[in-house]
Amino acid sequence: MARLPVAVLGATGAVGQRFIQLLAEHPQFEAAHLVGDATAGRPYGDVVWRLDVPMPEAVRRQPVLALKDLERAPPGIAFSGLPGGVAGPVETRLAQLGWKVFTNARDHRMDADVPLVIPEVNADHLALVARQHGPGWIAANGNCTAILLTLALAPLHRAFGLDDVHVTSLQALSGAGYPGVPASDIVGNVLTFIEGEEEKVEREPCKTLGTLGPEGVRPAPIPIHATCTRANVPEGHTESVHVRLSRKASLADVREALSGFRGPDVVRGLHSAPKAPLQVLDAPDRPQPRWDAMLGGGMSVAVGRLRLDADGRGLRFVLLGSNTIRGAAGASVLNAELAFATGLL
Amino acid sequence: MARLPVAVLGATGAVGQRFIQLLAEHPQFEAAHLVGDATAGRPYGDVVWRLDVPMPEAVRRQPVLALKDLERAPPGIAFSGLPGGVAGPVETRLAQLGWKVFTNARDHRMDADVPLVIPEVNADHLALVARQHGPGWIAANGNCTAILLTLALAPLHRAFGLDDVHVTSLQALSGAGYPGVPASDIVGNVLTFIEGEEEKVEREPCKTLGTLGPEGVRPAPIPIHATCTRANVPEGHTESVHVRLSRKASLADVREALSGFRGPDVVRGLHSAPKAPLQVLDAPDRPQPRWDAMLGGGMSVAVGRLRLDADGRGLRFVLLGSNTIRGAAGASVLNAELAFATGLL
Amino acid sequence: MARLPVAVLGATGAVGQRFIQLLAEHPQFEAAHLVGDATAGRPYGDVVWRLDVPMPEAVRRQPVLALKDLERAPPGIAFSGLPGGVAGPVETRLAQLGWKVFTNARDHRMDADVPLVIPEVNADHLALVARQHGPGWIAANGNCTAILLTLALAPLHRAFGLDDVHVTSLQALSGAGYPGVPASDIVGNVLTFIEGEEEKVEREPCKTLGTLGPEGVRPAPIPIHATCTRANVPEGHTESVHVRLSRKASLADVREALSGFRGPDVVRGLHSAPKAPLQVLDAPDRPQPRWDAMLGGGMSVAVGRLRLDADGRGLRFVLLGSNTIRGAAGASVLNAELAFATGLL
Amino acid sequence: MARLPVAVLGATGAVGQRFIQLLAEHPQFEAAHLVGDATAGRPYGDVVWRLDVPMPEAVRRQPVLALKDLERAPPGIAFSGLPGGVAGPVETRLAQLGWKVFTNARDHRMDADVPLVIPEVNADHLALVARQHGPGWIAANGNCTAILLTLALAPLHRAFGLDDVHVTSLQALSGAGYPGVPASDIVGNVLTFIEGEEEKVEREPCKTLGTLGPEGVRPAPIPIHATCTRANVPEGHTESVHVRLSRKASLADVREALSGFRGPDVVRGLHSAPKAPLQVLDAPDRPQPRWDAMLGGGMSVAVGRLRLDADGRGLRFVLLGSNTIRGAAGASVLNAELAFATGLL
Repeated sequence: MARLPVAVLGATGAVGQRFIQLLAEHPQFEAAHLVGDATAGRPYGDVVWRLDVPMPEAVRRQPVLALKDLERAPPGIAFSGLPGGVAGPVETRLAQLGWKVFTNARDHRMDADVPLVIPEVNADHLALVARQHGPGWIAANGNCTAILLTLALAPLHRAFGLDDVHVTSLQALSGAGYPGVPASDIVGNVLTFIEGEEEKVEREPCKTLGTLGPEGVRPAPIPIHATCTRANVPEGHTESVHVRLSRKASLADVREALSGFRGPDVVRGLHSAPKAPLQVLDAPDRPQPRWDAMLGGGMSVAVGRLRLDADGRGLRFVLLGSNTIRGAAGASVLNAELAFATGLL
Repeated sequence: MARLPVAVLGATGAVGQRFIQLLAEHPQFEAAHLVGDATAGRPYGDVVWRLDVPMPEAVRRQPVLALKDLERAPPGIAFSGLPGGVAGPVETRLAQLGWKVFTNARDHRMDADVPLVIPEVNADHLALVARQHGPGWIAANGNCTAILLTLALAPLHRAFGLDDVHVTSLQALSGAGYPGVPASDIVGNVLTFIEGEEEKVEREPCKTLGTLGPEGVRPAPIPIHATCTRANVPEGHTESVHVRLSRKASLADVREALSGFRGPDVVRGLHSAPKAPLQVLDAPDRPQPRWDAMLGGGMSVAVGRLRLDADGRGLRFVLLGSNTIRGAAGASVLNAELAFATGLL
Repeated sequence: MARLPVAVLGATGAVGQRFIQLLAEHPQFEAAHLVGDATAGRPYGDVVWRLDVPMPEAVRRQPVLALKDLERAPPGIAFSGLPGGVAGPVETRLAQLGWKVFTNARDHRMDADVPLVIPEVNADHLALVARQHGPGWIAANGNCTAILLTLALAPLHRAFGLDDVHVTSLQALSGAGYPGVPASDIVGNVLTFIEGEEEKVEREPCKTLGTLGPEGVRPAPIPIHATCTRANVPEGHTESVHVRLSRKASLADVREALSGFRGPDVVRGLHSAPKAPLQVLDAPDRPQPRWDAMLGGGMSVAVGRLRLDADGRGLRFVLLGSNTIRGAAGASVLNAELAFATGLL
Repeated sequence: MARLPVAVLGATGAVGQRFIQLLAEHPQFEAAHLVGDATAGRPYGDVVWRLDVPMPEAVRRQPVLALKDLERAPPGIAFSGLPGGVAGPVETRLAQLGWKVFTNARDHRMDADVPLVIPEVNADHLALVARQHGPGWIAANGNCTAILLTLALAPLHRAFGLDDVHVTSLQALSGAGYPGVPASDIVGNVLTFIEGEEEKVEREPCKTLGTLGPEGVRPAPIPIHATCTRANVPEGHTESVHVRLSRKASLADVREALSGFRGPDVVRGLHSAPKAPLQVLDAPDRPQPRWDAMLGGGMSVAVGRLRLDADGRGLRFVLLGSNTIRGAAGASVLNAELAFATGLL
């Protein structure tokens, strides 16, 4: 079966390279249009490739396109790895031209008619795209730290309710894009502030965990309190999560809710969907980013260090996931696979 | 005035070297007996010195003593930089011989008649040593992460009350002693577990913030929930702290309570007491361990990123301090200065 | 065809784990006896596994043996990942018992009748084992830094002669074993001394590049001058190499000699032999350990930054290779494959 | 005595900040004009300060000037911390206006009538400024790696002659300016290429070590071969140096030549001149950048690991120095002090 040609916006950047990598052997999508204004006209093989897997051969001779080239092409499917601020107007315009845009950028995430989707959590929200005023539409995935957190909160929210969530992240360098953090700022150091990050982590999970009704998404009323930091780690966001469950649970209940978490049937069969969205690690000192960021091909979130208070409601754990795969490019691709499987493409 | 000769137990280790450094120019105490069983008999100058300030000249030719040598000497004042587990019985025996022991080790911290002292917070607890069955006694300082946290909680506890505390630490390598963490375990990584640490951080501040009565110390009833991690940072523990105040406050109130925090008069004049135990940093991205760990000569705790919820009770901040000075050797020395100033030595 | 059962000495250590990994899917050898005195009696699955690929399932339930257990078994083939100093007498005794020992340890490398083999370079030296006084024998591979260097020197030595070699290494943490270098010694630092390393780098290549005659190996008379340092890199030794060729060459000649370098026919077909022992990288800023250490499955050496003086004799380049695979466990395994292919096993 | 007002070009950059720091308490010079086009008009206190010592109070309220502001002022003394490429024409123009420029930039270093000065080595070369066509002039210091190397070569060159020099540098992050190297490029890695660096290291020492005659500087005929790399170190360039002496020496001779090296009398009294330009460290594992970069206030070069071949001519050692002080800002300041002491200012 022929693969659907797709465009990658920001194809030469950090997230764009992950898109290229994930699409290289994808069964349904083919990276046909590589858009990158700064290097437009040159072959993609000239781009400095910064992933630890080789650049796929297929893209080496493809030309990098300017955005205006894309706008002249017949509309189709686009993945957006554009930076926040830049992405918004571009994505809006492409949707107006008929493109179906799967975006990793922050700009439209909280728009009322843009679904903020994690297929295992809220596949039904994708229907929200029908309320956009076509001909195309935008579907978003969340911030990297927020996605990983939301995946872990989802089964707890369903099974026990969540009265309160405190999270402190130790985020990886790759999350800052490229060139990102200067080395002289982080060697032997921790950065204790990431602009705009905490707001996203506190708001986005509530939208994804919310319920879709006639008036749109009603956010889940979960108070989330976040402190976001950056550590000298190349890949993999670590999060220390302290929650208060609404209803008592045993440690076995919690473990089962997390490790048994699965998306709906339609999601389980998707190409990029990991067998287990959450993998509970029982070793006392795991997860750690160097060893555990790539579980499930970078699409699983590792959860460990489960500690439950004697009252059965105070729960603490550490989670970890790939910020550039599950937290960015892989998230958009999984959303597109869901759209494909449900007939939206 | 002649300085009082003191013994340093574990003088060659990571904490012991800080003791040597801090005592080198101390007005009241002189490191007269350097105890280190493993290298006993050799001059202290043969020890591999691992601080970024040079070894004080005065100790280079002093011989390293075995513990049994010390036990034969007339009792006096001792600082204990011994490792937990080893320290307990040694300190007990020295106290029985008449020594006044200021210990950084964990073993006796929670003993009912051993004060767990931070002079600015609970100078009065030091009186507890009188209840030990002499002739000597033991006074303890807390775990490094706990001390830094307690200093920041103290003024909040007093001014507004504390209903709940969540803390996630990003601790430095020096806190693991030497050799401590293997480099291949931490390069590009974060360790998400430190054995025994969270228990200390959850319990010790309550004792230090507690009230001393006829039956001993009644711990402050503050629920503390901790996750402790280690980052690739040489010195300076960072802590992300989320608290719920019992009473509403404004951000200005909170800032004032923290930055205006001072110990009692007797403490302010002590040699090692910093002018401000807490320094509030207003730059949006501070504190950071590389730049801020040594404020107040390593005896101040930096506090930044103050964020208060609209309800005036949910407060979040980041604190940072030197784990080997304020969090270890400097803590013991300050306790000894307090004892000296109050006539206990 | 049934695989030959082999013993791994020091099976739980850093090199031993690489042996286990490389043997897991090996066509000729099977890790049948896992020897590790310190954990003897426990299942291998209890060992803390420190590689970034999972522990092979097959070994999880195998018991770790004590050396004396092995000595009671019928002799066969052994790979030695024992530490230098410990390895020597153990290997001697096993050879006396009839074992054929492929060792990575330093102890016997310079023994007159022990071949120091890199199959692509001196496959013929393996015959030297016949001069040992049986019934078993020992075949050695070199020090990690020396092996990588020797591979790059070999084609230059043959094609142009070598009047002089200066090498400065920037070695990886994994080369120090586990626990190896304390993190607090290397964060933001470089170690400028590695005990015993320079001597090996200066002597071993001459033996491997030497000629085997009736009186043994006559070392190649190449003056090698080495400075060895350690950088904060998890895997992959980098070497800056400056050589003086005996005969003039063009840059194209040099490039061709390096990239066209192949071992003898018998070696090319070996399971672990990479297609190209040396891979010349033309990007101006490569090789780099993070990206290039695992070329050819960790068995190729990357060479880049070729610079030739106008006189056609002064040549400078940077090489890089996996110190734990090509430089240790993989080297021993390749030697055993050569022995198998040439009928010595 | 009133201090001479000086201008700092590029005052907000990495080298500029070191100038500000070194001039803060300088007896002869005062940073009166802080030039930084990008932030002109704002107070210097608004600049993000990136040194580990606090910003001097005196400059906080000084306004940052644009270059054109400076050009309208009466000419005086200027220190140039401008980036290479930018610096050249600016410095030429200022000299034409009558300024005496001490530059750290590469642009004019190899100009025939610009002295390339290290006061301890070639104080006499400073006279070369008289051959510039006034009214002002330019005096340069070398590249950071070249300066450190030249200091160590100078006494060897004088005492024994140098037939050949091979150097491999492991350079610090601060040498790349700010923002410099992206953290994701260097974590767990070494960069094996620094553009333009090797050429400077191979040429500049020959000019500084050359002899000044009527036709200008005749470079010392020392063949230098360099490979330059960058390691994950915040400050302090390490260099592995292999030299061939022209005349036989003993190790004691070499040690004495290095440690006894002093500049001419006029230099010894300069404010920034360290007591010993070269400090020989005898510990087997020193120097190391974390501990030894700041000897002599960052103006001494540490030399260690002296190894001499049996032939008395092949010598190897490791040197280390502060790349931003002795290798940059401190070098310019010392040159200005020399000019002041010799009546050129």
